[in-house]
This record gives sequence, structure tokens and C-alpha cells, in this order.
Amino acid sequence: MFTLISSGSVTSALGFLAGAVYAGIKSEDEFDLAILCSEVPCKAAGVFTTNQIKSAPVVLSQKNIVRGRAQAIVVNSGCANACMARQGLTDARVMVNLTAAKLGISPEEILIASTGIIGTPLPMDKIRAAMPRIKPSREGGHDFCQAIMTTDTRPKELAVRVDSEGTEFTIGASAKGIGMIHPDLATLLCFIATDAVVSPDFLKAALQKAVNCSFNMVSIDGDTSPNDCVFLLANGLAANEPIDFDNGCDFQEALNTVCTHLARSMAQDGEGAAKLIEIIVEGAEDQAGARQVARTIASSPLVKAAINGNDPNWGRIVAAAGRSGAKVREDRLDVYLNNVCVMKQGCPTPFNKEDMKSSWSASDNVLIRLCLHLGDGQATSWGCDLSEEYVRINSSYTT
Amino acid sequence: MFTLISSGSVTSALGFLAGAVYAGIKSEDEFDLAILCSEVPCKAAGVFTTNQIKSAPVVLSQKNIVRGRAQAIVVNSGCANACMARQGLTDARVMVNLTAAKLGISPEEILIASTGIIGTPLPMDKIRAAMPRIKPSREGGHDFCQAIMTTDTRPKELAVRVDSEGTEFTIGASAKGIGMIHPDLATLLCFIATDAVVSPDFLKAALQKAVNCSFNMVSIDGDTSPNDCVFLLANGLAANEPIDFDNGCDFQEALNTVCTHLARSMAQDGEGAAKLIEIIVEGAEDQAGARQVARTIASSPLVKAAINGNDPNWGRIVAAAGRSGAKVREDRLDVYLNNVCVMKQGCPTPFNKEDMKSSWSASDNVLIRLCLHLGDGQATSWGCDLSEEYVRINSSYTT
Repeated sequence: MFTLISSGSVTSALGFLAGAVYAGIKSEDEFDLAILCSEVPCKAAGVFTTNQIKSAPVVLSQKNIVRGRAQAIVVNSGCANACMARQGLTDARVMVNLTAAKLGISPEEILIASTGIIGTPLPMDKIRAAMPRIKPSREGGHDFCQAIMTTDTRPKELAVRVDSEGTEFTIGASAKGIGMIHPDLATLLCFIATDAVVSPDFLKAALQKAVNCSFNMVSIDGDTSPNDCVFLLANGLAANEPIDFDNGCDFQEALNTVCTHLARSMAQDGEGAAKLIEIIVEGAEDQAGARQVARTIASSPLVKAAINGNDPNWGRIVAAAGRSGAKVREDRLDVYLNNVCVMKQGCPTPFNKEDMKSSWSASDNVLIRLCLHLGDGQATSWGCDLSEEYVRINSSYTT
Repeated sequence: MFTLISSGSVTSALGFLAGAVYAGIKSEDEFDLAILCSEVPCKAAGVFTTNQIKSAPVVLSQKNIVRGRAQAIVVNSGCANACMARQGLTDARVMVNLTAAKLGISPEEILIASTGIIGTPLPMDKIRAAMPRIKPSREGGHDFCQAIMTTDTRPKELAVRVDSEGTEFTIGASAKGIGMIHPDLATLLCFIATDAVVSPDFLKAALQKAVNCSFNMVSIDGDTSPNDCVFLLANGLAANEPIDFDNGCDFQEALNTVCTHLARSMAQDGEGAAKLIEIIVEGAEDQAGARQVARTIASSPLVKAAINGNDPNWGRIVAAAGRSGAKVREDRLDVYLNNVCVMKQGCPTPFNKEDMKSSWSASDNVLIRLCLHLGDGQATSWGCDLSEEYVRINSSYTT
């Protein structure tokens, strides 16, 4: 059982502090350097990009998280510190060392993340100069969330309070990312902080599970960043009954909800997008098949463009399902758009196109539901429409 | 050895006739129904969409082509006759029967293809009324090519004369398709007609080979049509030494050239596109890996949008290579944009962005070359930029 905390953030759980400054990495005067830290050491889990081109911060964090512990995370936006060869790793190490010295903890206890333009060096002098100005505090969660944004138009954060078998704990989270977003990868930055006492193995498994049903089911444009990572810190200050595989249901459910909420927010805020698309696939041969169909539809530029034009062009949805790689039988396929049946057992069903077009125009989300009638597999994915604005945003990002 | 025939078309080879009419399937007064036929029966080979949702014409043509013979092809544009359940197959059969009666040949000798909107029925009364007005002739190749176009802005056709070990023959071809185009599938309609004498087994193998290095290396938007097919008819009227696996080099080379030319034309004419993007990948672990990297880059919305804005944002190219699934090592990777090195062994190489931006503005194609330094695998793919116009075209196609 859990409740949403109003104005919750990544510092809502006990003992977490955050702070952010404008270091001058971004060209605009906006927060671009931030620290999240815990008053005490935490158990830590992480999920990272599967792109073979990994940013220096991802390489370094993957190394540091092996021990399953961390106490702080340092993040910058405006520069991805990716594709910078050895210079990139050196700069990431310096950034971690500066943070360690500032907080008085060991560099191995620090995770690092960067997001922004690929192939340009971090301005280390600016980072060095800005570091002392960061003042982590209990109220710093919202600033932290502002500082990790790049093309995002809205901060993405929340916190929930979980009441699990009589003990209480909190999960707060902060995420960014509305471009280079594609399923099957941890395609974004996300920071989750909880005061729960959790066993390290369960923490790791729970995070992977939550990411699979949330971030890995979002697609904005089919592209994958070298910088993606999701971190989960658990500092244990809630002093609850330790959570493990045998009693982790409530924790898992709350974590899934937090991640799903953030994943939906990403699709909703997708670069240039006006509409959230939710795709529910039922009756697939198995869950893997359901995921494949749902994600292929969410990634289809033609489906996305049609929805941008409020055009119920369901043929494109069916074509995307057919190329997904999962088993689909046309003669069993039912398709619903906002609960109106447009195809039943492979036959087009008459519906009022003009009515649907105008109801779509008035709404900022579209629900696509497919019933494959092949088995029990079920999955939900989220995407967004493809707009002229998306092209404008992405045709001139570096120059 | 082969030469391009000026104003060549699908009827350039001996004994091929074609004709087209406006039947009223399209809303505009443009050719939308066409027949290609040979004076004598042909050996025939076909490659079809791998989408599990197959249009009725694809299902019927796959059945008819099993015998490796055909004498005519009937095609319509404006309606895909896909996702129409049993009605679709009935309509396709009637269309084939009408063509058979008109030409005085058996329905089994006829292949059929449709392209256009998915999920609407063929207007059979209009097709029945228009059929007698089609007058196939030697000069009808260009009309045929016009009749298969949908969103295409230019016809795509050519013919080559091949001089192979003293005997001469001709290969003519006609193709369409600039949307729902994605690698690894026969993603388009293409009709190839040759007067060469060719063994049926070699014909089949040669077509698959040519499609693999041409149409299967094009991506316009990552979407795949249920209607795609490539047909190759060989009527043997050139009376050359029969071509088979042992002496098929010249035929294969000419066929590859024809298909590659048409594949490039599709990317060049990609919906809303202003630029052809050619991606050459060298030094991959193997050819499969090279193909994966080349096609992933060609399909990346972010790479495509950057090129639309004349923005040499090479980080997106590297990120796409890294998520392709093929082996990539950042520290060995070289990247060239129009032959200017921008990354060498994983290190960014300084280059004049403004110069590159203005040279791209003045050109209608961009060459991307990656050297992976992992092996001998090599492949070339073609794509196009992603423009606001693409979104406009596709946000209101059915309504």
C-alpha cells in the first residue's frame, strides 16, 4: 500500500540531500551541475545503457557500483562526456574526486552521470569553479531535477510513501530524457532514493524488474543514448523490517509505480510531442511477444505521424504489429482505438472516422489496444506522436 | 559488361508490353491500373514482404509463383487491398481472372500487386470497367511506371543492355515506394523484365542476391508494408546461351546495378526528403555486422533529422552504430563525413563545422563512412533525411 507525497522529489526519503548550480556547461543560465547524497552510506543498484558506445560516466559508474554501495551521485547536463576517448574518463574521474573531496567521502562511493551533446569535452575549469557553490539540502530535490534536464520541458519527479506490513518507508525519484529514447535499454537518466532497509540482491533484482516494465517500454524515437543509467540508492534510515525476496512485494509494486510514472512522463514530454500514446497488447503467445508488438507500434514513425494528425490510420498499427517479429495472426487480430473496435478477427469494422478525428483533436492521449488471441502474453508500452517540431528540435542541436 | 539504355523502361527487353489507365481508384486523375505482359511465357522469380500481415495480392502471387513461371503482372495503386480478410482475396482473384480473360492466358500465369491505403476495399466495379481500356504496347513501360506510383514524386525506371560472352540481352525495371520503407524486407514494388534465357534456379538466387544488396539496404522510415514484392520475369527472347550459376556473373552484376539504382532512387525520393544519405561501413567483423551497422545508421531518426538541418552531429552516428547489435569498439572507430575525418580511433578530430554545414547546404547528398577495424565486413546502405514535410505527408494520409 502506498500514497503519493505531494511535491515529492528525490530527497523525500529520510537522509537524502541535493543541490544544484549553474556551472556554465549549458549556454543558457540554468542549473547544469548537481549532487545527490545521503547522510549515511547506501546499498546501490544500477541499470545502464546497452549501447556499445558508452559514455565515460557510465564506464566509471559501472565500475564503482560493482560493490553494491554508494553514498552520492554527481550529475551534469549540457555535455554527455561521450566519445571523448581517454580524456573523457580522466575528466569523469576528476569530477568524482572533486565531489569526494567536497563531501568528505571516498571516490569509490560516488556514482556519476552526464547528459547533453556527444563528442565535446567537459569544461573542467567551470566544473571545478562551480563545485564549492553546490549546497546539498533536504529541500534540494527540485533543483536537482531541474539540473538534469536537457530538452525536457518539464521536470519529472515524484515520491511515494509505502506502508508495508506495519513499517513505513519512502521512495523518491527524479528522471530526465525526452530524446534518444528507445525500448530495451535503460534509455535515460533516473535517480531513485529510498530510506528503506533492503537486501542488496533484492535491490538489484527489483530495479531490473521495475525498469523492464517502465523505462524499457518507452520509445520516443528509436535512438539510444550512450549515457543512459538508472540508479537506486537505499540508505536504510527508515529502519523497517529488512526487505528481501520473501517480503518485497510492496516495495516492488511501489518501485514499479514510480518508474512507470516517470516513463509515462517522458513519453508525454517527448521531443516535439503533443500526445501520449499508450499501447496495450493482450493475448500474445507470451510476454516477450506482447512486449515486441507493443514496442514496435510505439516506435513506428508512421503510426506516430498519423496520431500527430489525429488520423485513425489503423492499417499502420496492424502493419507495425506484423513486422514486430512476434507471432501475429491476421485472422485473429482485434484492434481498438480509444476503446472503439476498428478491426475484429482481421476484418475492418466500420466506425465514424470524422467523430474519432475530432475526439482525438480534443485529447492529449490516445489508447491503442490489440488482442492477438494467441495466448496469455500481455504488455503495455508508451510513446508519443511524431511532429514537425521534433524535426525542428533535432535538425540543429549541435550547431 | 553492360550499358544504360537511354529512356529505358520495364518494356525495353524484347517481347514485353505494358499499358495503364486511370480506373478511378486514386482520387486524382492519374494512372492507377496497369498490366505488364510478355508475348511468350516467362521464367519468374519473386521476393516478398516478410511482414506477417500480408496483403491479398502478395498471398495470391506467392501461390502463383511457386511454379517458377508467369506471363503477366497486373498492378493497381491507390488501394493496398491489405487487411481486408476474405474479401481481399476474392477481389484479388477477380482482378487476376479479368486480366487472364483479357490476355487469353491462364490465371495461374498472372502475378498481382497492389499499393496504397491499407484497410479499404478495392473498387471492383471500377476495375472491371477500366480493364478493357488497357492497351499493352512496347511503348507502355513509362505509363506502367506512372501507374504504380503513390506518394512517389518521380518515376523510378531504367534498362541496361548486357553483352555477356558474345550474346546480348536486356534487363528493364520499374519500381515505386518512398514510404513504409525499411531494410531486411522487399519493401516496395519492383518489376524487372529481361529477355535473357536464364535457368529458373539461378533466376531465383540472382534475384535474392540483388535484393539483399539493394532494396534490403534502403531505409526511409523503419516501417514495413504488407504489400512489398519484387518480380523478375525472363522470357528468353534474346536467345542467348542459357545463363546459369556457372556463367551468371554478368547477369548478376547487371541485375545488382539495376536494383541498386532503383533502391537509391527510392531513398533519394524518400517522403519529404531533400537529401540522399549513403552509408559505407568497412572493417566490420563480418558482412552481417557491416549490414547491421549501415542499416541502423540509415534508420536513425536523430541522424536523419541532423542531416535535414545540415548539422554534422556525428555523435548520433556513433551512438546508432553502438546500438546496432553488431560488434563495435569505440577505441578503433574512424568516422568520415563527406571524406572529412571527424573521429579517429575513438577520438574526436577537429574540423570546421561551419564549413561542413555550408557545404552540406549546397548539396543533395551526404556520405557517411565508418571504418570499424575489426575484420573484412563491408556494406553500403541508403537513407534520406527526416523533414517536417515527412511528418506533414504522413499525419493525414487516410482522412
